[in-house]
Amino acid sequence: MNIGIIGLGLIGGSIGLGLRHSNFGDRFIGTDTNDHNANYALRLGIVDEIIPLNDLVMQSSIIILSIPVDGIEKILPNILNNIKEDAVIFDTGSTKYDICHKVSSHPKRSRFVATHPIAGVEDSGPISARHDLFYRKNCIICDSGLSDPEAMSVVMKIYSMMEMHLIYITSKEHDFYISYISHLPHVISFSLSNTILKIFHNQKDVIHHIMGSGFKSTTRLSKSNPETWLPIFLSNKKNLIHAIDTNIYYLELFRNYLLNNQFHKIHQYLKKGNDIKNVYN
Amino acid sequence: MNIGIIGLGLIGGSIGLGLRHSNFGDRFIGTDTNDHNANYALRLGIVDEIIPLNDLVMQSSIIILSIPVDGIEKILPNILNNIKEDAVIFDTGSTKYDICHKVSSHPKRSRFVATHPIAGVEDSGPISARHDLFYRKNCIICDSGLSDPEAMSVVMKIYSMMEMHLIYITSKEHDFYISYISHLPHVISFSLSNTILKIFHNQKDVIHHIMGSGFKSTTRLSKSNPETWLPIFLSNKKNLIHAIDTNIYYLELFRNYLLNNQFHKIHQYLKKGNDIKNVYN
Repeated sequence: MNIGIIGLGLIGGSIGLGLRHSNFGDRFIGTDTNDHNANYALRLGIVDEIIPLNDLVMQSSIIILSIPVDGIEKILPNILNNIKEDAVIFDTGSTKYDICHKVSSHPKRSRFVATHPIAGVEDSGPISARHDLFYRKNCIICDSGLSDPEAMSVVMKIYSMMEMHLIYITSKEHDFYISYISHLPHVISFSLSNTILKIFHNQKDVIHHIMGSGFKSTTRLSKSNPETWLPIFLSNKKNLIHAIDTNIYYLELFRNYLLNNQFHKIHQYLKKGNDIKNVYN
Repeated sequence: MNIGIIGLGLIGGSIGLGLRHSNFGDRFIGTDTNDHNANYALRLGIVDEIIPLNDLVMQSSIIILSIPVDGIEKILPNILNNIKEDAVIFDTGSTKYDICHKVSSHPKRSRFVATHPIAGVEDSGPISARHDLFYRKNCIICDSGLSDPEAMSVVMKIYSMMEMHLIYITSKEHDFYISYISHLPHVISFSLSNTILKIFHNQKDVIHHIMGSGFKSTTRLSKSNPETWLPIFLSNKKNLIHAIDTNIYYLELFRNYLLNNQFHKIHQYLKKGNDIKNVYN
């Protein structure tokens, strides 16, 4: 059985390594518009062969589409046109509504499963891929009722082999939830780094000498790949603007409490933030 | 030689354990307004005895003042009045200007060294104290010219034993730098948690099922102790408001680029954020 991976970056590469680690599939074929990534993936043993996209689509029983979300939206309809009769295709994009909407009336829609394994790190490229990247992480599967039960079972088996926790919601719910829980933290981290780098533009060594672990954990996400994240932000624009506005509201609230010496209000605000301990340890 | 620790929380406790680990000092005496913390510190072997503040001050050769910054500012002048002739006292507060200003004309000012070991974690209390908390972390020493060289050498020896990197700046520089590099990240983390907890107030399980490592790293600081952080924010109010305003400016900039589909501007913004890689790996 041929497994085709379109996009041999961190996510596609890690799925490839994860499947090989579980002895799933016979032959791994891959494609990437970035030759450097493609060659690396070959050398790292993620795939056995690099072949053109059209050939990959026609030869694969399972296709993993792990490229930026604007690319997924663009090529998914044409891939569905050309897949084998019984092939299954799933994507790994960080937004889901636009992608699902694009193929909603495609005759082969049911062979597609929309997924979002939540396991990115700030590093990118096949060089960062790991077979255990997904171990015990969350994976969201969207609009599952629109996929064939048999196609669903293939994808569920793949993610279960990697021990992911599977969550089933609609693509609309996904994009709303994820705008706050993932996209907003990324925007906040990029904005913090922009702020700090502007203030210390001639004194980067000062940052280095003064920073502690808190600085690192809040700016870590700003190391993420712009080629991945620009399309994500655009695809979730409406939700994300709402999330940013809500966050600015809370920042201004804190700022004004501080300006007006409203000690009790600030204390309540900080105690409320502490409630995040009820979400995770 | 008696070492006195005023405030037996995470920082005071970790300095006590660090000094014991290096076999520095003979007898460790401590005090804490929180009986629970005091008893814990005794049981954990951080100190040999809990004694009243006044007795501790009169009996100690080295005094570590590791309580919230408003407390330091309040009791430091009186402690200086009562220390032994050759005693050295240093504080560990996260703001420095108000504290230094408060004792600037005190006749025993030179026995005081103003320090800020940057090694906090979101956990607090003596239960979280570790002898290696400070290992290879940054430590800022402020207005060092106002301290006796001999008092300075004692404090430098203590932090060097714990392998901290020592930085020397003025208390005014400290508070400005730290407002951006530490206090702003804390405010951002608290505001992110306030935002998310408001949106998902009836659906905390949704956060848990969807979050990834990026969510955790950006919200981690919002677990910090309000009793520690409220006085820090108040003491650095002017700088911090400026830092928050600068950050809101950058958040709004991103928001407006997104609203107006300014793809190239967003890309530049994300690339600029990536420059944080030049500060740390």
